[in-house]
Amino acid sequence: MTNPQIQANAMEIDVLNEVCAKADAARIAQAQLAQTNTQRKNELLNVIADALDSRAGEIAAANAIDMQEAAEHGMDAGKLDRLKFDVSRVNAAAQGVRHVATLPDPIGEIVRGYHLDNGLRLEQARVPIGVLGMIYEARPNVTVDVASLCIKSGNAVLLRGGHAAERTNAATLGIIADVLREYGYDPALIASVDEYGRQGATAMMQAQGHIDLLIPRGGAGLIQAVVQNSKVPVIETGAGNVHIYVDQTGDQNKAIPIILNAKTQRVGVCNATEKLLVHQGIAETFLPQAAAALAAANVEMHADERAYAIIDKAGIDGVELMHATDEDWDTEYLALKIGIKVVDSLNEAIEHINRHSTGHTESIIAEDYSAIEEFTSRIDSAVVMVNASTRFTDGGVFGFGAELGISTQKMHARGPMGLREMTTTKWIGYGTGQVRA
Amino acid sequence: MTNPQIQANAMEIDVLNEVCAKADAARIAQAQLAQTNTQRKNELLNVIADALDSRAGEIAAANAIDMQEAAEHGMDAGKLDRLKFDVSRVNAAAQGVRHVATLPDPIGEIVRGYHLDNGLRLEQARVPIGVLGMIYEARPNVTVDVASLCIKSGNAVLLRGGHAAERTNAATLGIIADVLREYGYDPALIASVDEYGRQGATAMMQAQGHIDLLIPRGGAGLIQAVVQNSKVPVIETGAGNVHIYVDQTGDQNKAIPIILNAKTQRVGVCNATEKLLVHQGIAETFLPQAAAALAAANVEMHADERAYAIIDKAGIDGVELMHATDEDWDTEYLALKIGIKVVDSLNEAIEHINRHSTGHTESIIAEDYSAIEEFTSRIDSAVVMVNASTRFTDGGVFGFGAELGISTQKMHARGPMGLREMTTTKWIGYGTGQVRA
Repeated sequence: MTNPQIQANAMEIDVLNEVCAKADAARIAQAQLAQTNTQRKNELLNVIADALDSRAGEIAAANAIDMQEAAEHGMDAGKLDRLKFDVSRVNAAAQGVRHVATLPDPIGEIVRGYHLDNGLRLEQARVPIGVLGMIYEARPNVTVDVASLCIKSGNAVLLRGGHAAERTNAATLGIIADVLREYGYDPALIASVDEYGRQGATAMMQAQGHIDLLIPRGGAGLIQAVVQNSKVPVIETGAGNVHIYVDQTGDQNKAIPIILNAKTQRVGVCNATEKLLVHQGIAETFLPQAAAALAAANVEMHADERAYAIIDKAGIDGVELMHATDEDWDTEYLALKIGIKVVDSLNEAIEHINRHSTGHTESIIAEDYSAIEEFTSRIDSAVVMVNASTRFTDGGVFGFGAELGISTQKMHARGPMGLREMTTTKWIGYGTGQVRA
Repeated sequence: MTNPQIQANAMEIDVLNEVCAKADAARIAQAQLAQTNTQRKNELLNVIADALDSRAGEIAAANAIDMQEAAEHGMDAGKLDRLKFDVSRVNAAAQGVRHVATLPDPIGEIVRGYHLDNGLRLEQARVPIGVLGMIYEARPNVTVDVASLCIKSGNAVLLRGGHAAERTNAATLGIIADVLREYGYDPALIASVDEYGRQGATAMMQAQGHIDLLIPRGGAGLIQAVVQNSKVPVIETGAGNVHIYVDQTGDQNKAIPIILNAKTQRVGVCNATEKLLVHQGIAETFLPQAAAALAAANVEMHADERAYAIIDKAGIDGVELMHATDEDWDTEYLALKIGIKVVDSLNEAIEHINRHSTGHTESIIAEDYSAIEEFTSRIDSAVVMVNASTRFTDGGVFGFGAELGISTQKMHARGPMGLREMTTTKWIGYGTGQVRA
C-alpha cells in the first residue's frame, strides 16, 4: 500500500521537474531569440500572423468544442463571450500580432551611458528578462497577445491558461510552434503547461531559478494566492477598486460624462470606476444630477449617510439606492454598482483613496490648480487622471500596442505593461586595461 | 499549562503586528517626506551629517562596547574591521551623507511624456517606492548610507542590522531620530526592528502590504532564506561567482594586471574575481605567466586538468596548485583562491559562465571585435566588462554616490542600486473631459 499523501507529493515533484525542464528548454530557445535582430523578429511575427489567419478554422473548431463544454458547465454569458475565439476574432488577434511587429523594439536601447574618469566607457542597455511564466483566465486572445509580445521583446514564456480554453490554446500554440520550427526556432520558446492542469501553475510558483518572473492575471483570489505562495518573483496585476473624486471646483459638465463613461462604458474591467467621492461643498447640487444619470444607466448606488440623504430627497425615478457598509469601500464590484461618499475636504478624499484603493487608477474632476497638484502628487496609485475617464488606463490606449497586464504594485513595472516593461538591463563597461586603485 | 508551540506562535504574531505597525507609521512619515522638495531634503541631510560629526563620540563609545563583545565572542579580524565605527569612520560616513545631498534627486523626473490623439497629456514620473525593509550584516556605515539614500529618494525604511552592531546602530539611529524630530519629521521614517532580534527579520518577510520591498544583504544563506520565505517582494543582492575570460586574442599585458587586481585588490567582496577561463590557443604561453603572478600574490589555484598540467610543468616557485572539483565552479571563495579552466572556444567560455555564474560581473580580455561583441551580447550577468577589472562594479565607482547593494537578479533593478533604483513611477493623465469611445 502506498501512502496517498506521499504519492501526491511524488506526483507534484514529477510535475515540478517537468515544468523546470520546460523552463530550461525555454531558456535555451530564448538565448537564440535574444541574438535575433529586430527585422527577423518582425518577419517571424508577420509569418505567425499569416499562419493564424490561414489556419483560423482549426482554432475556431477547437474553440467551438471549448465553448460548448463551457456552456454545458453553466459558464455565464460574459465569460463565454471572452472565451469565444471564432474566425473573425482569430483574424483580429492576427492583426494584433502584425501591430506588435510595427512597434519599436525596446531591446538594445541604451538607457544610460557615460565615461568614468579613468576612461572606462559604461553603457546600460535593455535586454530581455529571460523566461516568463503567465497564469491567466480563459481568454484565448491573451495567448496570442502574450506570445507576440514575448517574441518581440526576446523573451520565452510558459503559459497556463484557463482550463475552459485548453483546446483553443492548444490549437493556437500548435500553429505558433509549427511556424517557429519551420523558421529554425525552437518551439520550446512559447510553451504551455496546461497538460499538468492546476499542478502546472503550482509548479511554476516553485520553479525559482528556472522562471524569472511570474505574472498572474485574473481574479483577486488567484493573484493573492500566487503572491503568497510563489518563490518566483511576481508582478501583481489588475485589481481595480478605482475612484473618481469630484472636487468643489469640479466642472459638472465634465464630471457627469466622465463618471458615466468610467462606470458604464464597459463593466467588469479593472479600469472601470467603482467609487465616487464628492466634496461636501458641491454635493447638494451635484449629487442629484449624477444620481439621475447613473439611475438612467441602471447603476445601483451604495451611498454613505450624507450621499443617501441627498439622493433620496431628490426623488429620482427608478433610482436603486441603498446604504453603503464598511465593506463597500474595499469592494471591486465589477458590476453596475457604485459606492458614493461625501467628503469634507480634498484631504479626506486623498486619505480615503490611499486607504481603500488597490492602487490601479483614480481620477479627480476639478478646475482648481492647487487641488489638482495636491491630488496628483499625494495619490499613491499607478495612474492618476485629471478631468478624464479612468477607462484610459490601458496599454493599447497608452500606445504600447498589446499589453501583458496592468501592474498594481511598485516593483519593476507600474501601470500598463508593454514591451519595455518586459525588459531588464545589462551594464557593459568598455575598457583599455583599467584596474581599480 | 500552555502549549509552548502556541506560545511561540503568539509571540511571533505579536512581533508581526508590531513590525506592521512600525511599517504603517513609516508609511505616514514617508507620505510627508514625499511632499518635501529637494532643497529641504538636502538641508536635512546636511544637518544629519553635522549631528553625526558633533556626536561621533557617542557612536564610537557604543561601538567600542560592541567591538569588545564581538571580540570576546571570537569574531574574526575581517568582520571586526567592518564592525569598527570609531570617530574617524563616523566622520567619513557623515561626509558620505553630505555627498548624497549633492547628488541629483531622481524624484519627479519625467521618464516619458506624450499626448494621446484625443489630447490627453500623459506623463510617467518617478516617485518614491514607499517603505523599504533592509536586512544586513554588522556594518554600521551601511546604516548611515541607507538612511541617507532613503531620505534623498523620499523613502522610509525599517532596518535589521547584524546583531553584533546593535548598540552602534541604536546610537546612530538615535541621533538621526533627534534631527528628524527637531526639523518636524516623524522619526518613524528611519526605524529599527533590532528590538525583536531575529523575529524582526522574519516579521518583515511576512509584512506583505506593509513593506513594499525587502533587500537582504549578507551571506548567500541569508539571501536565499529571504528569497524562499518572503511574501514581500525581494531584491537579491551581492552573491558574486565572478569570471574573467582571456580570449586567444587577449593582450597579456592587460590581462595579468587585470586578473591580479580583480582577484587580490580586495578579497572577500562580491566583485572580486573567483574564476579564470583561458582559451586553449593562448593557454600554453599565458597560464605560466598568470600563475606566476598569482603565486607571487599568494593566490591558491584550483585548476582543471589542462590548466593543472600547464602550470605544474612551469615549475613556479611557491605555487599552491590543486585539482579543481566540480564544486569549485559554483563556489564563491571570498578568499585568496581562484579556479582556473582551459576552454576550447569562446562559446565554451560563454556557456560555462552562463551555467555557473551568479549573474554579478564577468570580464573578457580580448582584442578581437567579434569575440567581444559575442561575449557582451550573450553573457547573462548584471555587468560585463571588456578589458577592465571586475572590481569596478560598484555604485560609488559608477557615480551613484552610496549604494544600497548590487542586484544580481533581473526584476526592478540589476547591478549597483543607487537613488534611481529606489524609485517607482506614477502615470499622470491631464485631460479636459476626455471619455473613452
